[in-house]
Amino acid sequence: MAVPQMFDIQPLSQALAPALQAKIDQKTKPLGALGQLEALALQIGLIQHSLSPSLDKPCIIVFAGDHGVAASGVSAYPQTVTAQMVANFAAGGAAINVFARQHQIELLIVDAGVNADLTAIPGLIDASIGKGTANFLEQPAMTPAQCAMALAKGAELVLRQWEQGCDCLGFGEMGIGNTSSAALIMHCLTGLPLEHCVGRGSGLDDAQLRHKLAVLQQVLSRHSKLTDPNEVLATFGGFEIAMMAGAYLKAAELNMLIMVDGFIAGSALLAAAGLYPAVLDYCVFSHRSDEQGHRSLLDHLRARPLLNLDMRLGEGSGIALAYPLLQAAVGFLKQMASFEQAGVDNKS
Amino acid sequence: MAVPQMFDIQPLSQALAPALQAKIDQKTKPLGALGQLEALALQIGLIQHSLSPSLDKPCIIVFAGDHGVAASGVSAYPQTVTAQMVANFAAGGAAINVFARQHQIELLIVDAGVNADLTAIPGLIDASIGKGTANFLEQPAMTPAQCAMALAKGAELVLRQWEQGCDCLGFGEMGIGNTSSAALIMHCLTGLPLEHCVGRGSGLDDAQLRHKLAVLQQVLSRHSKLTDPNEVLATFGGFEIAMMAGAYLKAAELNMLIMVDGFIAGSALLAAAGLYPAVLDYCVFSHRSDEQGHRSLLDHLRARPLLNLDMRLGEGSGIALAYPLLQAAVGFLKQMASFEQAGVDNKS
Repeated sequence: MAVPQMFDIQPLSQALAPALQAKIDQKTKPLGALGQLEALALQIGLIQHSLSPSLDKPCIIVFAGDHGVAASGVSAYPQTVTAQMVANFAAGGAAINVFARQHQIELLIVDAGVNADLTAIPGLIDASIGKGTANFLEQPAMTPAQCAMALAKGAELVLRQWEQGCDCLGFGEMGIGNTSSAALIMHCLTGLPLEHCVGRGSGLDDAQLRHKLAVLQQVLSRHSKLTDPNEVLATFGGFEIAMMAGAYLKAAELNMLIMVDGFIAGSALLAAAGLYPAVLDYCVFSHRSDEQGHRSLLDHLRARPLLNLDMRLGEGSGIALAYPLLQAAVGFLKQMASFEQAGVDNKS
Repeated sequence: MAVPQMFDIQPLSQALAPALQAKIDQKTKPLGALGQLEALALQIGLIQHSLSPSLDKPCIIVFAGDHGVAASGVSAYPQTVTAQMVANFAAGGAAINVFARQHQIELLIVDAGVNADLTAIPGLIDASIGKGTANFLEQPAMTPAQCAMALAKGAELVLRQWEQGCDCLGFGEMGIGNTSSAALIMHCLTGLPLEHCVGRGSGLDDAQLRHKLAVLQQVLSRHSKLTDPNEVLATFGGFEIAMMAGAYLKAAELNMLIMVDGFIAGSALLAAAGLYPAVLDYCVFSHRSDEQGHRSLLDHLRARPLLNLDMRLGEGSGIALAYPLLQAAVGFLKQMASFEQAGVDNKS
């Protein structure tokens, strides 16, 4: 499959790094004492080409989609839950609503391809590619055209946010069955054994987990070995995962700070980084999911998450919880006094 | 030394635990999917005897004190920095100011015993026990009376906050030399080898670290082996550490949620818990410091911190950064819809 050059993503310029580091080191604290927050401040400063970066208009976009493979009994919950949770998001009753409200993060809910009529749900953004993907046990989840359309729609949504002044965004997802999709993507793009990539999702017991693994092994036996990110996305992806991949890429192209959520969001980033490795320069990893596989996925990306709270919820929940740490990073860089300003003696 | 029964601390009642857990499990999320936040919500509900706990008036009290041992070259910074940093706190230029402002946390700065005249610093609370402790290389850091007074003053400050409606508080510290004090307290009260308790503090190099360890070994050789928490506090404590211990105990007596900061705050808690073990029921651990020894200290307390950002600053900085996670815990418990309310199918 030919890879269309849809995006123009520049590796992050390191030009401001020495000046940013000097500013960080002059703050009234022992050298390096703010740990990961210092690395964050440096990265955000580089992304914004500024010694005083700021985060003023954060946004989380939650992409929802259904998965044909849900029919094969790989989830603890029925497929109907995807649409029901979309309604819950729209009504403000889900975890991501609570956490986004807490930190004044704008929250957009997108129908990327839910298997239900959602026209009655107020505020929902319709970007549906279809009523759920095909079951990849039988055929590719989507056609190449559907996958390309999902990438383009993700990009378009990000562009719209950027035009409205959004400077920092992250992506969540909802889709019964999508840890199966993510596990296959991870397996293909990292080369790690499938059993390292498959986990309990929303709460499978041991027998159900064995069944899920067996189903996914069967899936792999029916498809030729894939490593091309576009083909992997089209064959095993969900609409929400492909749309998220397009969103990552557009955000990086637009020089925005990207907050990466958990396991499924990570699989979408693997695909995006497979196409354009420089996307990773713009990413901050919000948390390590309790879903088996996520630790290895993060290791593969050489990523260190900000939080590790044993969560496994998706929805962008980890992003909303980690966001105040990004604010703290730009906050100390902007507001803390230097040794000279405060009249504090530096290291003897 | 006789232990005066100054505090009346009740172990946390578990009566509401089943009802709280049921409420948590009915929220629209997979069972357990919010990980540590669920444990937090349960603990805060138990402390407040409520199925809908809330945190409305958080406060951080920073205790500052000087240490006689600073004269023995155990810190990377000169003793003058303690007073200078107190002025920086009062002027709003330190890291804790930035982070407390970010989350609307009230911040009190207390002179627990700084070796300087601080009367000109506006807003500073004077609870000074003396102009710095004695050097425990030569004699006990404080007299039993000074130690008792520090405990009482810490308690008094907490009572005042409680009377003003504070429902959640944590304690920070500033004091050049106080990782030495904390290391000795930790060694005495955990029984762990001294070299596991001694770290680089504000940034010692290898040679300076060896010197610090040698000084503290010499200190131990000059005192009889101590295990009584009151004696350990008086002999090796700082005024700010003893005051913090009293503050912990009063907060637990008043049934307040306590946020615990890093290594020095942890050593004060070790002393407090040595006197009244039930204090731990009221504690949430905000972060794991990068200071060597803190991991073992947390393990000893069977505590799992919320954040692990390689910070080693003190000041209560970890508390301010972790506070939004506590708000998230009470937020989801109060605001998330249940499966029934949202019309979402539960696990099949």
